[in-house]
Amino acid sequence: MSQIDFWYSIGSTYSYLTVMRLPEIERASGVEFKWRPFDVRHVMIEQKNIPFKDKPVKTAYMWRDIERRAESYGLDPRIPAPYPLPGLVLANQVATLGVEEGWVVNYTRATYRRWFERGEPAGEEPNISESLREIGCDPAKALAAAQSDRIENALAAATKEATELGVFGSPAFVVDGEVFWGDDRLEDALLWAKGR
Amino acid sequence: MSQIDFWYSIGSTYSYLTVMRLPEIERASGVEFKWRPFDVRHVMIEQKNIPFKDKPVKTAYMWRDIERRAESYGLDPRIPAPYPLPGLVLANQVATLGVEEGWVVNYTRATYRRWFERGEPAGEEPNISESLREIGCDPAKALAAAQSDRIENALAAATKEATELGVFGSPAFVVDGEVFWGDDRLEDALLWAKGR
Repeated sequence: MSQIDFWYSIGSTYSYLTVMRLPEIERASGVEFKWRPFDVRHVMIEQKNIPFKDKPVKTAYMWRDIERRAESYGLDPRIPAPYPLPGLVLANQVATLGVEEGWVVNYTRATYRRWFERGEPAGEEPNISESLREIGCDPAKALAAAQSDRIENALAAATKEATELGVFGSPAFVVDGEVFWGDDRLEDALLWAKGR
Repeated sequence: MSQIDFWYSIGSTYSYLTVMRLPEIERASGVEFKWRPFDVRHVMIEQKNIPFKDKPVKTAYMWRDIERRAESYGLDPRIPAPYPLPGLVLANQVATLGVEEGWVVNYTRATYRRWFERGEPAGEEPNISESLREIGCDPAKALAAAQSDRIENALAAATKEATELGVFGSPAFVVDGEVFWGDDRLEDALLWAKGR
């Protein structure tokens, strides 16, 4: 049984679905997921692959698709959520600190819930501090550390690692060198991890 | 039980998966699919939504993803198939004639098989004439009719109809006004058709 790396950026809309359903899937499958925040916007700009910018028809479809799939997972988001997120980088710097300190999963879920279920953009206030408080972190301390050179560099290194693996969008699942892109490929990644 | 409109363009890579597995799904589900060829390239240019142009990482992923999913469906394509197709419009003009004359499904499957399994681009020779001969049509007669103003106009009208429904990519499934985009949404469309 392999481990699956779950590459994501807070700021990705479809990643909401994965972030919310992953803990239950992890329990049910017995497969371990490693949460790996990275800066998908950096990769998208570099690869000239901006999926929704100036594409109103595709964007409207994306929201409807997320709404339908959220319902099928028993989730109840306010659609559309604020998008795109100006604070994407800071949101993922905080998550990167959370990897170091062991609270990345709780923070990511808390910030997504506020973003998608209360309409508060992730990566800015009040979302960041409220999410940190909710999971038992000191917002001032965490925000200072998240904006340090060390964490900036760690996020850049994770983004480079993702790119080198062939990850170009969020969410992506990497298992034994195979990339699966999209919340809708999570089950395929699981099958791969279990040896198909 | 609703009918599902299956909107597609010969020229779309992911549509290979749907084209090959749809007849079996139709039999197993009892849901009727109406095959609706349209010109996805026209829509993509109009909406500035060109999914793979100048995106080598995303394109490499697309082929690997199709290869894995084809295997899971018991298909054995030669990956990558020639892409993009210069003859996209002509291929879909022939399919549009096939709608009128009742052989659209057989032609679409024959031309995709040659394109994906033998490496012969659809929309050009020898693929077009061989596919037509295989399904019992006279290639010279069909090609002349497919390039008539009547069929050109019918393809343009279908493309306009697809756009007005909110279809922006191929394959897409439309059921009761709901659009489902991608071979990986076929099962969602089926559930919708069955009243969920």
